[in-house]
Amino acid sequence: MSEITRIALDAMGGDNAPGEMVKGAIDALGREKDIKVYLIGKEDVVNAELSQYTYDKERIGVIHATEVIETAEPPVNAIRKKKDSSIVVGMKMVKEGKADAFVSAGSSGAILVGGQVIVGRIKGVERPPLAPLIPTEKGVSLLIDCGANVDARPSHLVQFAKMGSIYMEHVLGVQNPKVGIVNIGAEEEKGNALVKETFPLLKEEKGINFIGSVEAREIPHGQADVVVCEAFAGNIILKLYEGVGSVLIGKVKEGLMSSLRSKIGALLIKPALKTTLKSFDATEYGGAPLLGLNGLVVKTHGSAKAKEVSNTLLQCVTFKKQKINEKIKESIQPE
Amino acid sequence: MSEITRIALDAMGGDNAPGEMVKGAIDALGREKDIKVYLIGKEDVVNAELSQYTYDKERIGVIHATEVIETAEPPVNAIRKKKDSSIVVGMKMVKEGKADAFVSAGSSGAILVGGQVIVGRIKGVERPPLAPLIPTEKGVSLLIDCGANVDARPSHLVQFAKMGSIYMEHVLGVQNPKVGIVNIGAEEEKGNALVKETFPLLKEEKGINFIGSVEAREIPHGQADVVVCEAFAGNIILKLYEGVGSVLIGKVKEGLMSSLRSKIGALLIKPALKTTLKSFDATEYGGAPLLGLNGLVVKTHGSAKAKEVSNTLLQCVTFKKQKINEKIKESIQPE
Repeated sequence: MSEITRIALDAMGGDNAPGEMVKGAIDALGREKDIKVYLIGKEDVVNAELSQYTYDKERIGVIHATEVIETAEPPVNAIRKKKDSSIVVGMKMVKEGKADAFVSAGSSGAILVGGQVIVGRIKGVERPPLAPLIPTEKGVSLLIDCGANVDARPSHLVQFAKMGSIYMEHVLGVQNPKVGIVNIGAEEEKGNALVKETFPLLKEEKGINFIGSVEAREIPHGQADVVVCEAFAGNIILKLYEGVGSVLIGKVKEGLMSSLRSKIGALLIKPALKTTLKSFDATEYGGAPLLGLNGLVVKTHGSAKAKEVSNTLLQCVTFKKQKINEKIKESIQPE
Repeated sequence: MSEITRIALDAMGGDNAPGEMVKGAIDALGREKDIKVYLIGKEDVVNAELSQYTYDKERIGVIHATEVIETAEPPVNAIRKKKDSSIVVGMKMVKEGKADAFVSAGSSGAILVGGQVIVGRIKGVERPPLAPLIPTEKGVSLLIDCGANVDARPSHLVQFAKMGSIYMEHVLGVQNPKVGIVNIGAEEEKGNALVKETFPLLKEEKGINFIGSVEAREIPHGQADVVVCEAFAGNIILKLYEGVGSVLIGKVKEGLMSSLRSKIGALLIKPALKTTLKSFDATEYGGAPLLGLNGLVVKTHGSAKAKEVSNTLLQCVTFKKQKINEKIKESIQPE
């Protein structure tokens, strides 16, 4: 018999909580049998949502948490003070072995702080990176690190490369994933001090398929499966992706509405365009894991809907079944 | 009588040289009377192109240069060895006061090295930044620095902010341009070591309109007119802009071609879409100036066509008429 993956899901976090969180949990139950979801949040609110569905009561639990950490709150303070918040309660379940994973669409800052402070790092992991999936022409790449700890050291980046490779190979199913380091030119001698120091270390590393530098222009073309960078650059890349995308799509829509002729054209192209643009949407693949922790913490988009939540829950099952943390332990601390 | 701006134009650099370079020069002559353009390159080749046009021979000169620096050549070496290349010859004209500006679509590396080594910095300028214009929802912003010198110091960034403000105000005509520093959050305490050190310096600086941190997501929305960052981040932003743009437009085109219905729609929307996407194209505004030099050096896109070349030549005229270098000198070295 297969092992059950137990997931604590923050029912209160994100723009569409609790409705889409609960809906996502119910949906995941229908897609995967070896899963149990604990919905963390205000009991009455969560139960009211649950009452709309018919589901296997054995596989859904409700854990009462009276507080909610808001996105605007300073994270360190929030984690320390709001002991009965859905984020703190859910993370403690992972820490205490009552859940295998914690999933939240809530405050990124609180999730990053809580992951380190409550769940804790795997021994040997210097920094747990936040690794979102970004859409590319070919599918999806892992951008590692987009967390809150900037000014990384070369040894951190090497660990990111290893953890990212394991994740892409065993959770996303990419064979021998290509690892690239974000740089401003393709040549080995290019880059800032951090990249120049990290480059030879990655080249020496046997467990990964290092392809060298990746220029930012090539990232959307999917040149590397694992895109390694420190968090300052990672945040720029992640957010510029969103910004350029939304402005360009806005410009296209503006163009479509500019004349009667183009409006008629717009009606004709709408279904086809929707399908193609959907293929350039990473939320289909699930949330961003915070890797290197004693357990799993996944941050979904603040705007996550049921489908992303459900995909993320299934991603947690794969994470456990593929024994990702055991693989990370072996890779970071070879005997 | 107005003063003439004399511009040395690299007739041999870029994908469309010499044809589009020569065409751009001829076009600029028709748009601006106070201009003289020296075409630098192989005399016979340039003259053959020129023979296609009727133009004011007083305002076009041809300067023979036998060599061409290729994009793939290591820049320092190329500048040192190829004394008779169009880039070296053109830059020497600026150095010797025979031209006010040098414009090239050739090797970025060679232009950056040559600008510093041949043309030389204004006294007090620590680092000459390369400052391309990037398209935004509202128009265009100056991204400063995208040069080759990474690992900048806070004092460099402060100078970039000052020079960028002067350029946007007096060349682009943006009144009281908003200056932002690229950061991973809006709060003052966020950022890497460089940003944290630079932030209070920019806040104190009286000559600029500092609006604080700008997240990468907001750059395409045009939140700041002058977007300050060190060159590693600047290169990522510039190239990711291109990458995401080209992949997204590619996806849209793929969508349009996916069915008969969408193909008919595509025909109807084509003219409107072309016009709107053109508004998201910074080449309309001209090339990227390398600021803080004893003269002006402008890098146009490698793929520059006559229109961008012509716009860039006019940009050089404004630069001289508005006495930008005198303003930079005053700002960098107050008496």
